[in-house]
Amino acid sequence: MKKFMNSAETLVAESLAGFVAAHERLVTFGADRKFVRRRTLRPGKVALISGGGAGHEPMHIGFVGQGMLDAACTGHVFTSPTPDQIVAAIDETDSGAGCLLVVKNYDGDVMNFEMAAELAASGHRIATVTVRDDVNSGGSGRSQGRRGVAGTLVVEKLLGAAAEAGWLLDDLGALGEELNGRIRTMGVSLRGVTVPDTERQTFVLADDEMELGVGIHGEPGRARAKFATAHEIVGTIVEEIVKDLLPGRDDRLLVFVNGFGGTPVSELYLAYNAARLHCESLGLTVARSLVGTYVTSLDMAGLSITLARLEERELSFWDAPVDTAALRWGAHCTFP
Amino acid sequence: MKKFMNSAETLVAESLAGFVAAHERLVTFGADRKFVRRRTLRPGKVALISGGGAGHEPMHIGFVGQGMLDAACTGHVFTSPTPDQIVAAIDETDSGAGCLLVVKNYDGDVMNFEMAAELAASGHRIATVTVRDDVNSGGSGRSQGRRGVAGTLVVEKLLGAAAEAGWLLDDLGALGEELNGRIRTMGVSLRGVTVPDTERQTFVLADDEMELGVGIHGEPGRARAKFATAHEIVGTIVEEIVKDLLPGRDDRLLVFVNGFGGTPVSELYLAYNAARLHCESLGLTVARSLVGTYVTSLDMAGLSITLARLEERELSFWDAPVDTAALRWGAHCTFP
Repeated sequence: MKKFMNSAETLVAESLAGFVAAHERLVTFGADRKFVRRRTLRPGKVALISGGGAGHEPMHIGFVGQGMLDAACTGHVFTSPTPDQIVAAIDETDSGAGCLLVVKNYDGDVMNFEMAAELAASGHRIATVTVRDDVNSGGSGRSQGRRGVAGTLVVEKLLGAAAEAGWLLDDLGALGEELNGRIRTMGVSLRGVTVPDTERQTFVLADDEMELGVGIHGEPGRARAKFATAHEIVGTIVEEIVKDLLPGRDDRLLVFVNGFGGTPVSELYLAYNAARLHCESLGLTVARSLVGTYVTSLDMAGLSITLARLEERELSFWDAPVDTAALRWGAHCTFP
Repeated sequence: MKKFMNSAETLVAESLAGFVAAHERLVTFGADRKFVRRRTLRPGKVALISGGGAGHEPMHIGFVGQGMLDAACTGHVFTSPTPDQIVAAIDETDSGAGCLLVVKNYDGDVMNFEMAAELAASGHRIATVTVRDDVNSGGSGRSQGRRGVAGTLVVEKLLGAAAEAGWLLDDLGALGEELNGRIRTMGVSLRGVTVPDTERQTFVLADDEMELGVGIHGEPGRARAKFATAHEIVGTIVEEIVKDLLPGRDDRLLVFVNGFGGTPVSELYLAYNAARLHCESLGLTVARSLVGTYVTSLDMAGLSITLARLEERELSFWDAPVDTAALRWGAHCTFP
């Protein structure tokens, strides 16, 4: 395995240092470099904090900024941040309106964010949203129930806009729970990933195979299948999501095609084209789109498709200004 | 080779269709889908047109918009656009102030853009800037002299800002030539690329090898070497560039770390961290930075580093508003 790194022990810290230096107008390190936070916090606003293992970049650090997260805590590769990191982020970003923790549904993340919430409870009001957007997992691998995958970006964008609009902590928590019923994701991998520490591939695929329903830690999915055309692969994914999400003809859909790290942007746009056409052929309305490499699994080749059913309120939150390293629109965007 | 596509013949057209649909507020197809152009052209401004083979996305289509390109012509994978495409882009975007063609220095591109300029000369004033930023090639592979690689982004950003500021055609051409002396790039690859049509890898590397000085068509570079730490690889690249560019202690540098398509963003930030520290250890001043996957070679694993010596004028052009699919800052950025 060839990776640009100096040692497995220091790779996360060095990558974070590069990120903060490259985006110093947007973000800064929190105390003791335990987390990355918005350079300018907004007093009176509920603080949004997320985090998880490294290896999913630009999530979550790339979502820190106006209209999205106030802080992101990064653990080691595919390893939850510690409660200590999360408590430090709560202490530094809560300006009195409380903290909303956005957690992907993996056992390690859930446990450490819960522990942090308990440790910080005496001094802070805290609510937690646990994201569960994967159509596939149903308890496999590292999670109880559906995993939190690329749909986490959508949850963080919508809740970030609501927080910026002055929503209160409890209302944000309730919106987060509601969003869990409106967002579904399914992924496909063309190649397993190798974790830097272990030098072991999560799974090995033949030249003509793909893994459907893969997770963002390279967990095997629900089925191994013969590789096929983009039309067929995307069609299968969209059908599986639609079966689960049950969008109506009146729903307005966000279609989000997300690269896992090793897939070129040209293929993502081609997949988006196929997804849009497939949705339209089902009589569904594609109202918004996002295409890019946002929620990754190291350099895994593959992509996920997320569909979200948005009503007027969610559409306005999606369109609201955002100014982060990875996502930026509707605002006077910061020079990097 | 597993790629998300339906057929080698249609992959470029389908990917472009997805791109235009995903960014319909920013761009639109030109006549007969021969090119992608800004949705809203600015009358009286010199039109900037670039293009090249597909397989380098988001370049150039992702650079179409306010503050950068007016149109981008895409050929088949690693194949120049035809003169016919380029003439159509000239006809549609020239509002009387003339057209500046920005061409990467590869024989095919140079030939077809020259032919287009001749064909369009009767009705339009045209100037051409041929970008030559590679430190390594010196005539190898598909080009006479230095190749145009990731530094093309920098040239297009600076010329785009100058055009937006009202610069005239001849002055833009002269600035482009001057920029050729100020920008140098060197790349490293960890894995050759497979072109969809041929199913043949451009080169094959062992598990412990890398290719230094690689081009963006997966051309072999100047040396095959043992894979090393990020510190060593980045140090070698920065030293080679500095030997060629000869920046002074008063120069203000832009450091641009560019992923080739298959390298995760976390590794790019780690490489940026190493590059910044190395420049500083040489007494050089890093004034600006850019880190991301912008000028690619399909899904090649690897990265390039570009250093640019910027004076006040170029710094202000770099900082000037830009609102494209791939690069956006300093402007009220368009919702995608």
